[in-house]
Amino acid sequence: METINIELIRDFLREGGDKYVPQLSVDCVIFGFHEQQLKVLLLKPRGMESWALPGGFVEQGQDVDAAAIQTLKDRTGLSDIFLDQFHVFGRADRNTHDSMRLYLESIGIEVAAFRWLMQRFVTVGYYALVNFEKVRLQASVMEEKIEWFDLAQIPQLAFDHNEIILKALNALRDHLDSKVIGARLLPELFTMNELQGLYETILGSPLRRNNFQRKMLSLGMLERTEKLYTGGAHKAPYLYRFLEGE
Amino acid sequence: METINIELIRDFLREGGDKYVPQLSVDCVIFGFHEQQLKVLLLKPRGMESWALPGGFVEQGQDVDAAAIQTLKDRTGLSDIFLDQFHVFGRADRNTHDSMRLYLESIGIEVAAFRWLMQRFVTVGYYALVNFEKVRLQASVMEEKIEWFDLAQIPQLAFDHNEIILKALNALRDHLDSKVIGARLLPELFTMNELQGLYETILGSPLRRNNFQRKMLSLGMLERTEKLYTGGAHKAPYLYRFLEGE
Repeated sequence: METINIELIRDFLREGGDKYVPQLSVDCVIFGFHEQQLKVLLLKPRGMESWALPGGFVEQGQDVDAAAIQTLKDRTGLSDIFLDQFHVFGRADRNTHDSMRLYLESIGIEVAAFRWLMQRFVTVGYYALVNFEKVRLQASVMEEKIEWFDLAQIPQLAFDHNEIILKALNALRDHLDSKVIGARLLPELFTMNELQGLYETILGSPLRRNNFQRKMLSLGMLERTEKLYTGGAHKAPYLYRFLEGE
Repeated sequence: METINIELIRDFLREGGDKYVPQLSVDCVIFGFHEQQLKVLLLKPRGMESWALPGGFVEQGQDVDAAAIQTLKDRTGLSDIFLDQFHVFGRADRNTHDSMRLYLESIGIEVAAFRWLMQRFVTVGYYALVNFEKVRLQASVMEEKIEWFDLAQIPQLAFDHNEIILKALNALRDHLDSKVIGARLLPELFTMNELQGLYETILGSPLRRNNFQRKMLSLGMLERTEKLYTGGAHKAPYLYRFLEGE
């Protein structure tokens, strides 16, 4: 584990009480798709045992949406990202402060002076869909590591972040047939197989190939382009792209 | 205008700073359907010029969802209501405090002591679908009137509440084909005409009768029951109900 810059954390804690909207945060479930796997971006705060979702607080002069956009930009380098509020996690027993206190104490920070963090936080959940190839991962100074995790291999996370991911996945499933989901997660040109793989990994179950292809084409949102030249003896698959507009 | 109980408002303002989560509120767009019109429930706070959405604050020991449920129960008498978070309104320039100050000053309350209200509030928007026949309207002591408004006849509201209704209506449109929308807004038995009327008023445009009937029946969520006896010479329409489950 790298050295923790205690002064940095102390500064952050000291100014937070006045700087941010009290008891409000944002958490971002950033989905990417690579090698037929749906992936989620997680980070490991310095000195914390668990992985967690990228998140942040909302400055008094900042839009809530802007706080989420900033969180994404800081970690992925991308500024033009599709992101969608999907749920507010606001239970009275939502407890982020016990873990936070343990964490701060473990790195030698006395929390008595930082009461603003020791309360129930209401968090606005956003999900984002990013083009995996374009992301340049960047941990912030407060973070030890940032990595993509396969959806099926997400560990026990800090706070209620596993629950937040589940809820984001449900939202993604609900929105799956609106074309924006596929268009954001796939490269510009893709095969029907790749599109089916994306659907299967989001839905968590296999789909019948013929049915899938028929349904997708009937939605009228795909355009078929030139054949992919594979150089092999097998039939080359068609490449598709999403139609503009709508 | 009835007398305003200044002491009541003063008490509410005095205790609010400690009692509620700072800078957070809930606002509820309550939809009902009656005489082929989609309606929204609005109230008029005592001494305020404009109508507004029912809303409230979140107590420190209260779930955010519970605050919305309470808001609905207080105004409709219904406790088992379908309601759904649809959007968080969190712009930095979201300004409820200027109107709030004007209002408080107009009824003779000095706001200097009530700084907690004079900040940007982030509000969680919920929409609710209620069975119009079952609602018993109840204004709270802070309110002069509470009434149903046809969607097409909603006046200029306080704060950004017109924008909140528009966004709720969009969410309702997005969710329209999930059966819960119809089942919550219609009586248990209804004609295909009534169902079409509901869709038309939500979508804001007429639908072709034959197409509509075919589509609805193909979704497999309706059960046809006995004929409605009208006593007239015309063909009596079938009555439908939504199937249980799903």
